[in-house]
Amino acid sequence: MTIELHCFGESGNSYKAALALELSGLPWEPVFVDFFGGAARTDDFRGFNPMAEAPVLVDGDVTLSQSGAIQQYITDKTGKFGGRPEDKYEVLRWVLWDNHKMSSQAGMTRFLINFLPEKHRPPEVIAFMQGRLKAAYQTLESHLEGRDWLVGDGLTNADISCCSYLYYPEPFGFDRAAWPHIDAWLSRISAVPGWKHPYDLMPGRPSDRT
Amino acid sequence: MTIELHCFGESGNSYKAALALELSGLPWEPVFVDFFGGAARTDDFRGFNPMAEAPVLVDGDVTLSQSGAIQQYITDKTGKFGGRPEDKYEVLRWVLWDNHKMSSQAGMTRFLINFLPEKHRPPEVIAFMQGRLKAAYQTLESHLEGRDWLVGDGLTNADISCCSYLYYPEPFGFDRAAWPHIDAWLSRISAVPGWKHPYDLMPGRPSDRT
Repeated sequence: MTIELHCFGESGNSYKAALALELSGLPWEPVFVDFFGGAARTDDFRGFNPMAEAPVLVDGDVTLSQSGAIQQYITDKTGKFGGRPEDKYEVLRWVLWDNHKMSSQAGMTRFLINFLPEKHRPPEVIAFMQGRLKAAYQTLESHLEGRDWLVGDGLTNADISCCSYLYYPEPFGFDRAAWPHIDAWLSRISAVPGWKHPYDLMPGRPSDRT
Repeated sequence: MTIELHCFGESGNSYKAALALELSGLPWEPVFVDFFGGAARTDDFRGFNPMAEAPVLVDGDVTLSQSGAIQQYITDKTGKFGGRPEDKYEVLRWVLWDNHKMSSQAGMTRFLINFLPEKHRPPEVIAFMQGRLKAAYQTLESHLEGRDWLVGDGLTNADISCCSYLYYPEPFGFDRAAWPHIDAWLSRISAVPGWKHPYDLMPGRPSDRT
């Protein structure tokens, strides 16, 4: 049975789930959520996912949102990306850190800068968030010094979660060249066989709306 | 062996771990992190936890940060707060949602309003965050309608995570009376035998610094 992932290309959170599905080898297909057209805010979608967010995975009777929970589901189903047994908490720790300190703020900042009409953009909020994000990039950069992967010796959910917003072309303050260890790590992830860019993996990209 | 939790009273993220430890019955003791005195930013602490954050759990050879990872560790050790087996992903989903959409923003907003010198307070950022938080309270309020607990029929890590910032007396825009289902749920959690308020469970409170 083909797994459905309700998602859209601009969503880094969707990308975490889509990339994990793609690299896992599970049969899956994206179902476009017209987020910018308001689809996630309709009563129908809220009935489906009261958190009113993407991605949502549907696998037979299972309906699940929150990318980190979907990643864990894929790991339990395939045995992939969970790391070694002794790395379980370390992988979870980085997935939580990403949700807490990085993706949540990167996603919002990228949205404010790129997807909100210019007259509605709050410059103070953007500057504040970019300051917080810089601290997050620094944490990641320091951790990756001397390491190929965030946890253990291979790709795990920690990498899939933390990399998600960093491949997008729209500017939000992340300058890949300024962070050499992050840069090398992103190249390492995108060299994994089967890797695809978010806009090649999911429907929906900014140029569709212009 | 007594588990150490490096924490401080004002930290809702520390509270998640402290409350789980306290209610689990495990032997534990708090170790004060003088966060407002800069302790989490010293090289010593960064060596201990490169994410430069509290809480940090130390249990023999295990050193672990990120409250959600610590909560999972306590669940694996005691069998408590994980919910029924079929609720595994739903509990994880709410823990991630809390880290992503609620605690991260509530903690920051409460910090900006209460713990930052008045001249450094960014009013635009505070207003923006309070708008985002209102949407989070609404998600929680809607989900709790007709439910006693966030997941299943008893206290789980989902409740322990999501409630953490909502017991604090310092104002940050959460008006408990305005959200009747959240209000009743918070009363339900605080009626659990052994429950303690954050300032009664961990050292450090605002009045220590005035």
